[in-house]
Amino acid sequence: MNESLITDAPMTITVDDYISVRERTTDLASPLTIEDHIPQPVYFASPPKWHLAHTTWFFEQMVLKEHVANYEEFHPEFSFYFNSYYNTLGARTLRADRGSITRPGVEEVYAYRKHVDSAMKSFVSEPEQVTTEIAELIILGLNHEQQHQELMVTDFKYAFALNHVGPVYHPEADFAGKIEKQPAGWIQMEEGVYEIGFEGKGFHFDNEQGRHKVYLHSFAIAETLVTNGEFIQFIEDGGYQRHELWLDEGWSWVQQNEISHPMYWVKEEGKWFRYTLAGYKEVNPDEMLCHVSFYEANAFAQWKGMRLPTEFEWEAASNHFNWGERWEWTNSAYLAYPQFKIAEGAVGEYNGKFMINQMVLRGASCATAPGHSRNTYRNFFHPQYQWQYSGIRLAKSI
Amino acid sequence: MNESLITDAPMTITVDDYISVRERTTDLASPLTIEDHIPQPVYFASPPKWHLAHTTWFFEQMVLKEHVANYEEFHPEFSFYFNSYYNTLGARTLRADRGSITRPGVEEVYAYRKHVDSAMKSFVSEPEQVTTEIAELIILGLNHEQQHQELMVTDFKYAFALNHVGPVYHPEADFAGKIEKQPAGWIQMEEGVYEIGFEGKGFHFDNEQGRHKVYLHSFAIAETLVTNGEFIQFIEDGGYQRHELWLDEGWSWVQQNEISHPMYWVKEEGKWFRYTLAGYKEVNPDEMLCHVSFYEANAFAQWKGMRLPTEFEWEAASNHFNWGERWEWTNSAYLAYPQFKIAEGAVGEYNGKFMINQMVLRGASCATAPGHSRNTYRNFFHPQYQWQYSGIRLAKSI
Amino acid sequence: MNESLITDAPMTITVDDYISVRERTTDLASPLTIEDHIPQPVYFASPPKWHLAHTTWFFEQMVLKEHVANYEEFHPEFSFYFNSYYNTLGARTLRADRGSITRPGVEEVYAYRKHVDSAMKSFVSEPEQVTTEIAELIILGLNHEQQHQELMVTDFKYAFALNHVGPVYHPEADFAGKIEKQPAGWIQMEEGVYEIGFEGKGFHFDNEQGRHKVYLHSFAIAETLVTNGEFIQFIEDGGYQRHELWLDEGWSWVQQNEISHPMYWVKEEGKWFRYTLAGYKEVNPDEMLCHVSFYEANAFAQWKGMRLPTEFEWEAASNHFNWGERWEWTNSAYLAYPQFKIAEGAVGEYNGKFMINQMVLRGASCATAPGHSRNTYRNFFHPQYQWQYSGIRLAKSI
Amino acid sequence: MNESLITDAPMTITVDDYISVRERTTDLASPLTIEDHIPQPVYFASPPKWHLAHTTWFFEQMVLKEHVANYEEFHPEFSFYFNSYYNTLGARTLRADRGSITRPGVEEVYAYRKHVDSAMKSFVSEPEQVTTEIAELIILGLNHEQQHQELMVTDFKYAFALNHVGPVYHPEADFAGKIEKQPAGWIQMEEGVYEIGFEGKGFHFDNEQGRHKVYLHSFAIAETLVTNGEFIQFIEDGGYQRHELWLDEGWSWVQQNEISHPMYWVKEEGKWFRYTLAGYKEVNPDEMLCHVSFYEANAFAQWKGMRLPTEFEWEAASNHFNWGERWEWTNSAYLAYPQFKIAEGAVGEYNGKFMINQMVLRGASCATAPGHSRNTYRNFFHPQYQWQYSGIRLAKSI
Repeated sequence: MNESLITDAPMTITVDDYISVRERTTDLASPLTIEDHIPQPVYFASPPKWHLAHTTWFFEQMVLKEHVANYEEFHPEFSFYFNSYYNTLGARTLRADRGSITRPGVEEVYAYRKHVDSAMKSFVSEPEQVTTEIAELIILGLNHEQQHQELMVTDFKYAFALNHVGPVYHPEADFAGKIEKQPAGWIQMEEGVYEIGFEGKGFHFDNEQGRHKVYLHSFAIAETLVTNGEFIQFIEDGGYQRHELWLDEGWSWVQQNEISHPMYWVKEEGKWFRYTLAGYKEVNPDEMLCHVSFYEANAFAQWKGMRLPTEFEWEAASNHFNWGERWEWTNSAYLAYPQFKIAEGAVGEYNGKFMINQMVLRGASCATAPGHSRNTYRNFFHPQYQWQYSGIRLAKSI
Repeated sequence: MNESLITDAPMTITVDDYISVRERTTDLASPLTIEDHIPQPVYFASPPKWHLAHTTWFFEQMVLKEHVANYEEFHPEFSFYFNSYYNTLGARTLRADRGSITRPGVEEVYAYRKHVDSAMKSFVSEPEQVTTEIAELIILGLNHEQQHQELMVTDFKYAFALNHVGPVYHPEADFAGKIEKQPAGWIQMEEGVYEIGFEGKGFHFDNEQGRHKVYLHSFAIAETLVTNGEFIQFIEDGGYQRHELWLDEGWSWVQQNEISHPMYWVKEEGKWFRYTLAGYKEVNPDEMLCHVSFYEANAFAQWKGMRLPTEFEWEAASNHFNWGERWEWTNSAYLAYPQFKIAEGAVGEYNGKFMINQMVLRGASCATAPGHSRNTYRNFFHPQYQWQYSGIRLAKSI
Repeated sequence: MNESLITDAPMTITVDDYISVRERTTDLASPLTIEDHIPQPVYFASPPKWHLAHTTWFFEQMVLKEHVANYEEFHPEFSFYFNSYYNTLGARTLRADRGSITRPGVEEVYAYRKHVDSAMKSFVSEPEQVTTEIAELIILGLNHEQQHQELMVTDFKYAFALNHVGPVYHPEADFAGKIEKQPAGWIQMEEGVYEIGFEGKGFHFDNEQGRHKVYLHSFAIAETLVTNGEFIQFIEDGGYQRHELWLDEGWSWVQQNEISHPMYWVKEEGKWFRYTLAGYKEVNPDEMLCHVSFYEANAFAQWKGMRLPTEFEWEAASNHFNWGERWEWTNSAYLAYPQFKIAEGAVGEYNGKFMINQMVLRGASCATAPGHSRNTYRNFFHPQYQWQYSGIRLAKSI
Repeated sequence: MNESLITDAPMTITVDDYISVRERTTDLASPLTIEDHIPQPVYFASPPKWHLAHTTWFFEQMVLKEHVANYEEFHPEFSFYFNSYYNTLGARTLRADRGSITRPGVEEVYAYRKHVDSAMKSFVSEPEQVTTEIAELIILGLNHEQQHQELMVTDFKYAFALNHVGPVYHPEADFAGKIEKQPAGWIQMEEGVYEIGFEGKGFHFDNEQGRHKVYLHSFAIAETLVTNGEFIQFIEDGGYQRHELWLDEGWSWVQQNEISHPMYWVKEEGKWFRYTLAGYKEVNPDEMLCHVSFYEANAFAQWKGMRLPTEFEWEAASNHFNWGERWEWTNSAYLAYPQFKIAEGAVGEYNGKFMINQMVLRGASCATAPGHSRNTYRNFFHPQYQWQYSGIRLAKSI
């Protein structure tokens, strides 16, 4: 997910909360070698080193430099390297070159994390300093870090997959997601006005804010996600060769990139295998499909004579099914809610800037940080991207 | 607009109706030289010759060859040249090469039109032959032709504008659109459920079909369109240099293409001029802005502290203002209505295939065929395109 | 060929000479429809209309406007349209857009030719006006026009070939070039110093000027050109699939463009056909191979265990074999001769600017103007281009 | 330089020779952090890790696996990773992804070097095993490694330069090259036949083999290289803005890449600085110009009213001047010598494959391995590349 930030949640923050999120990031990176921290395998990914530093930069820049009197900056150059918000042409070039920047080194980045964490722990441990506003900022920073945790995992998976030996990150990280019941049952939803968007007092991002009414016509939505087995039927029925199943730009994408299966799949001697962070595994037909683009999700639904749910349908029905293993593509474009406002200042600067050409994904995935998911959460990616842990839930009008 | 077709309108068709639409196409082309019929100035445009033939192909292929017993095809190759629906890789190449195909020649294409028109007139003049279903097909063909009339105009305008002398197509074709009242007044719209989509018995396209309920929160929408003068203020306030006003991909578009003004504008000795089909004209600040992309429309709205309306807001309020001079960008992505279904067979084959990465425009333009506009009509283009007669109407939440 | 100009040949010019060359251009264009004059099928080609006008512009600009007192320019804008020498970024865009410029129209361009020819004929018919220097300039203009005659033919052939019906330009224009004797005999050439470059008093281009000594080691060169039949053997032996036969960049070219045969060849039901300006013809194994790139020529030579001659070897041996049907790729890069000097002023401005990344072709082709060929003539194209009438003559070191 | 290999030099090889070259590679890499070993900053560069491993692979693959009975391969996958000679489309992708392959890690690559070196030392220390043929192969491997030493330095310099702090590799590695005498004196060379190419018994590459005669006309060549100061005059005289000084494709390169100075130069507050491996240094006008492309070298010569020497002129005159600090662009394309033959088998497979579209550089540079330079050595790069230590020596015909 690209970065969309901030909220108005009135909350408090404890040192334990802070540490817990911060340590999860370094825990995730702990199986990585120093070398693994460096590559940017494709322009839309970032190196693990960058994720580790950029999330830290947030606390230094937004909290410590703003609110801690004698805070000593770790290194004046870090702000240049690890701030994602340079929007001039020159700095864009920099983004594509993230994988070429080897200094500061990995060890220095971990020292940077320690330096900032130490200052943050001191700061947070004195509650009188931490106003509600500052607490909200810190909580935003932690949520921002959780987003980068997931991106970091999917980004280094992308790099690992280019290595033909299929490096093992962790022996249990295959994220198979077995589905017992097939075919999926259907949940019937009645026509009417539904309330959509975040409500309450917990943390949420600004793009899910603004609880509002949406009118939905009756529809049905699948209880379970599409399995590998179902998708293999699509492949074997010529799904990737039948242009009538695809959106026009989806078909171009298939042709130009010679797409013929979900990302990370390979066929050897008649059997499908998939690269996972636990190494190559044979594809199990009863497990959850993963790593498909919106184009593939939409073509599959077309092939089934169904469709994808809108994000509003998904949210309205979300209490009736299990979710959280795969980001679920919806047939909604990522656009503003009626009351959406761009927040003032640096934190809010970029909230709405991604609201074009991207589709909303709902739910969460096996790679999402614990406690980071909500049924009002709006994730978004371009329709051609496959490298997130994305899957398919079908819907139909009734 | 790309092509989305068909409907269920129960209607009759007369020879006069048919002739009227068909003649408007050749009337529009009558100021063109033979040479003007050939170029395809950019991959998303088509040569006038192709528009003239492709619209004719529709009647030959869908009506005459299907429903007229002894119809003699004009030329067996024409179906290959003038059918837009070849979706294999090879044939896509053909699309980019439309401007290189000089044979059949222009005269032969006009003969093709006459041949088909003659057969069509005979056919239509015997009402017992024309079932309701066939009448609907012919009406669809006429609406299809009206869409291509507008595209033909914008496509040859694109080619003419590459010619630095600024060819005059017609001395009155400057489409200025004077706006007397400035600043615009505001129409207040109340919160509630609105009915959206086509209803009734007349012709409509499938993408506007399926009258359905939408819940709108209260909003205000401008009575009039943005003027050249207002947009010049945006330019002079550094609008094209301030990245915070732009969507992220809009900003990339501005940078990479060095965009600094609406399409067809040039500045000479401190004055803005615009290329029109009546030649170069000085930009009048009281006239309607034209030829802006969605990105520009959105950045302008951001600069005003407002936003674009959604297509639903636009439709709900459309009886309260004048429209029809400019296609008005909305902040809605082009997606399916709840009951949208892809029609069976060749006519319906491609209805929904463009429902990705495009934004909806509402209204109609100075180049739209008379009688071709409805307040439920959904036009759609990619957010970077400027070559249609597109303008801006502002909105705000209240 | 790109344009390299001028010379020091002391000569006279008659009205008949002038007319003869000028009429050949319009004769070549006479089978073209108005429409055929417009397309620019690929960025390195130009529309026939442009060739017709650009060659005329030379005489107006360089001769009439400079040397005829009361010459009245045909149209002030023509210089902008039909001068190839705009080297700013904007004007480069213009080059790619040549096929979109429909005005001035074809008829006007022919009128332009008549206007200039009339003035030129008056001027040339009064010998006292035509100094030696001016005569040289006119002769240069005629040679320039002859170069464009050949380019015009190969450019409209490129466009015609995109049209799947294979338009017939002239029923005798298949340029087959039958070779009776196979395999080719070999001409043995002795080691020693050879004189290379133009000598004498006739017309020649500056790039062939500067007769100079070159030391050649002994070699043999084929008496005849490679036939279609020999090249089919190469194809059938997997020539296009064996990377070891190709230069590294040639192999990339083959892969990226999926090249598997000479340009304009198609295989249908097991038989090879080639598009010619006389329409599709079955490939005759005894005829001369045509439309191959340097990469293909070099790979073929490699496959035969031989090599291409250098341009110096070719010139030294050229009196011992027949040439003139195909431009013959040499293994020499297009670079300056020892005494090469860039001429002063507009005419000479661009003489040496193409001396990078191109390979020399020697001889002439079936499409070369009569009297335009010399054994010192240096033609040059990029190694990937196939659209000239190019063939292969083998050589080997002995 | 791309890789062109092998020779027929009858030689012996000692353990000390072997160690000396091999240790220089690791010495050069010793200031690099682990992170520095990973990036591939641009598609034509390679990561230091890859250079370290690829040079080692040569000895394992060509010597140990072929000629040592019980040699135990270090790791079966290394051949896949570190062999540059995969020429299918898939494997080309791999080349662009070299910077994303983090495993095997840097430490493992050094272990690979030790493993191979240990086996090689044992092997070489028993002279009866090392036939002349094998000795030649080892010497070829050492020369291959020396080539990669220079590429490794220029490749990591490219990556370092993307880092805006300008990392210091070694405080003395600024390679300034002071020139005392200005302007350069001229060496006059007489017309006649010269012998060109390698002669004798030492090591040489196949592309310089085949001593042969070349006829040269009289010329003068500069005693010293062009200085920074001279090149600043070119800049200040508008050299980068005057298209008449540039080859046509050079001008396109300047325009499209917005080139306005040698690579690694920046101007701050009116002063020129250059990034060096010793960090940023102010440009000293008396030092040797460096990091220019052939296009820049040629334009500069044009501006001076002179030209670049051919590689034959350079070699013929090379005993009369000092060389070795900068690779000197010549006006010769990289093509085969008269007797050039592609060697049999894997070693020779790729000797001639780069002989297209590249220009020859002569001499050697500050980054060339000691003992690796000869006046017959032919280096070659595409005319747009600046990242080698390349400079300019002027010539003129007399």
